[in-house]
Amino acid sequence: MACSMKTRAAVAFAPNQPLEIVDVDLEGPKDGEVLVELMATGICHTDSYTLDGKDSEGIFPSILGHEGAGIVREIGAGVTSVAVGDHVIPLYTPECRECKMCLSGKTNLCSAIRETQGRGVMPDGTSRFSYKGETIFHYMGCSTFSNFTVLPEIAVAKIRTDAPFDTTCYIGCGVTTGVGAVTKTAKVQPGDNVVVFGLGGIGLNVLQGAKLAGAARIVGVDINPDREDWGRKFGMTDFVNPNDVGNTVEHLVNMLDGGADYSFDCTGNTAVMRDALECCHKGWGTSIIIGVAEAGAEISTRPFQLVTGRNWRGTAFGGAKGRTDVPDIVDMYMDGKIAIDPMITHRLTLDEINKGFDLMHAGESIRAVVVY
Amino acid sequence: MACSMKTRAAVAFAPNQPLEIVDVDLEGPKDGEVLVELMATGICHTDSYTLDGKDSEGIFPSILGHEGAGIVREIGAGVTSVAVGDHVIPLYTPECRECKMCLSGKTNLCSAIRETQGRGVMPDGTSRFSYKGETIFHYMGCSTFSNFTVLPEIAVAKIRTDAPFDTTCYIGCGVTTGVGAVTKTAKVQPGDNVVVFGLGGIGLNVLQGAKLAGAARIVGVDINPDREDWGRKFGMTDFVNPNDVGNTVEHLVNMLDGGADYSFDCTGNTAVMRDALECCHKGWGTSIIIGVAEAGAEISTRPFQLVTGRNWRGTAFGGAKGRTDVPDIVDMYMDGKIAIDPMITHRLTLDEINKGFDLMHAGESIRAVVVY
Repeated sequence: MACSMKTRAAVAFAPNQPLEIVDVDLEGPKDGEVLVELMATGICHTDSYTLDGKDSEGIFPSILGHEGAGIVREIGAGVTSVAVGDHVIPLYTPECRECKMCLSGKTNLCSAIRETQGRGVMPDGTSRFSYKGETIFHYMGCSTFSNFTVLPEIAVAKIRTDAPFDTTCYIGCGVTTGVGAVTKTAKVQPGDNVVVFGLGGIGLNVLQGAKLAGAARIVGVDINPDREDWGRKFGMTDFVNPNDVGNTVEHLVNMLDGGADYSFDCTGNTAVMRDALECCHKGWGTSIIIGVAEAGAEISTRPFQLVTGRNWRGTAFGGAKGRTDVPDIVDMYMDGKIAIDPMITHRLTLDEINKGFDLMHAGESIRAVVVY
Repeated sequence: MACSMKTRAAVAFAPNQPLEIVDVDLEGPKDGEVLVELMATGICHTDSYTLDGKDSEGIFPSILGHEGAGIVREIGAGVTSVAVGDHVIPLYTPECRECKMCLSGKTNLCSAIRETQGRGVMPDGTSRFSYKGETIFHYMGCSTFSNFTVLPEIAVAKIRTDAPFDTTCYIGCGVTTGVGAVTKTAKVQPGDNVVVFGLGGIGLNVLQGAKLAGAARIVGVDINPDREDWGRKFGMTDFVNPNDVGNTVEHLVNMLDGGADYSFDCTGNTAVMRDALECCHKGWGTSIIIGVAEAGAEISTRPFQLVTGRNWRGTAFGGAKGRTDVPDIVDMYMDGKIAIDPMITHRLTLDEINKGFDLMHAGESIRAVVVY
């Protein structure tokens, strides 16, 4: 039986309240689990979405955070794929390589631990976290807003040891989601025209993914004019502010001689998702939903849009298989093929984590990172 | 200048009125056009959709019909791809092999004459049909409810001369739409599980397309229990009547261990289109809309359905390129790889054409064909 320890963590005791920084109890790793010391974690809109009570399946009290990087400090019985001292990125989309989903070769949505992960517990049905004897739940299988966390072995990607934690952590969600949506889900080809709706962190990573793929026109769409400069840093060739054009869809269709080969929604707004589909080229244009919509929100369109050859798709974690693809994306970063450093706009201590949420809400950060 | 002639035709003078069988005036083929003597034509739901005033872009007076087979009787100047005496199938989706769409290699939606076709006229902007001096418009570029019609050269597929007209005409729409949706749009692979919503003529052709593709489970869904026998004749392995199960989507997902690899909507009902998407397997399931919805009707779903890996697509004319693929489908029929004869449930004269609509509305025909 693994021993228990204390770890400093930011706990979400209830929705719509600031996180509280306290010392929680953490049980050590059980069979097939590893103890990871987080060295850095990004603060992502999805954490905010849950904290703001918008996720109907959000569980409290819990330790949020799912975009981390750290070092394996202890391994449970039977763990063979990682060792103490390995540098790892926690995976909210694990990769067991044994379930129907993994074996299909058609998706990254491993189903091995989905059910328990959704209930905020480890695969054995219990939580490793507690505070004053009360259970604190895991979040997205990661809980990176804690100096230490426990993860199933199948939910960590081993990465090279020379990658800096305070930038590489962003690969744990935003970078992989954006770049992967282009290269793995859409498989954009050289010369394709791409439109990206929403130039936050995900959108900027979609832009650089499109540039990497050799796209011809890379159009960014955002109602915030300040995002134009940001977009141009990451490969955007054209900027469209919907407030400056009459009909955004018509404008884009005319601009791209019939429409986008691929469009990406990075806003989570279902009206924008519709525009993203309808600005696609008749006959083959494909729109990919990345953004997470509010609970209950629905997308709509006339079926004619699909009958005339547009495709409506989505992606989670950029279609990336965590243990297989994440180490490659770290290599791409270290080789200078993709940029992360300029996107890390704020570095905070764990005690300052609520400020990170404020910066994100105010649109002042691309990515705020907590460095432990 | 080509001469004018008389031809017997069923004219739709106004929506929601029976067709009137009259002798109309037909101008001969101009440059790049051919005169075709129709030998048979199917009566399709799309003709009824227009006649019932449900198509907001429907034009009257016009000569409906778009599912024909006949013989070239005269060619206009510059016509090189067909000759007098050739057997042909008119194409409401032409294939010019020169436009951006044709050259893309990604779609069958040729754009060469789309604009004029949509306005009910030939590519030069005028109609060849008139009655008592009044213009009668073309329909879907075909107007097969006429003993003779004029078509652009790019809108006829030359077929073998031993194929019987009264069955082969069905390849002009229903057969190609259904079989092509499976083999060309979806590209169903051996072992895939397929669900087909709506077992009318299109649905039965989707079933036989799935059988031809080597699908494992081929599930037909219809609220009409009489369709079960029909489905089993064309490869259906399982029948589901939504009135007999609690929740159709849940039932199908459980039945197929997670859902369909491919589903097809052949109903035109937007609520069914949603079920067709949501019964698809997480991670890769693809739903293809074939049915034509009422004007203004919209499809909806939660974006989560797409983010978790389902794909929403559509198809027109089964993704088939008319001049290239239709002759192959005629060969498949003549070689016994697909069946058409049992689907032709009624043969009528042109004078009986309104009875054909009545049979279709009453659900008593799979396909009623007018034989000239």
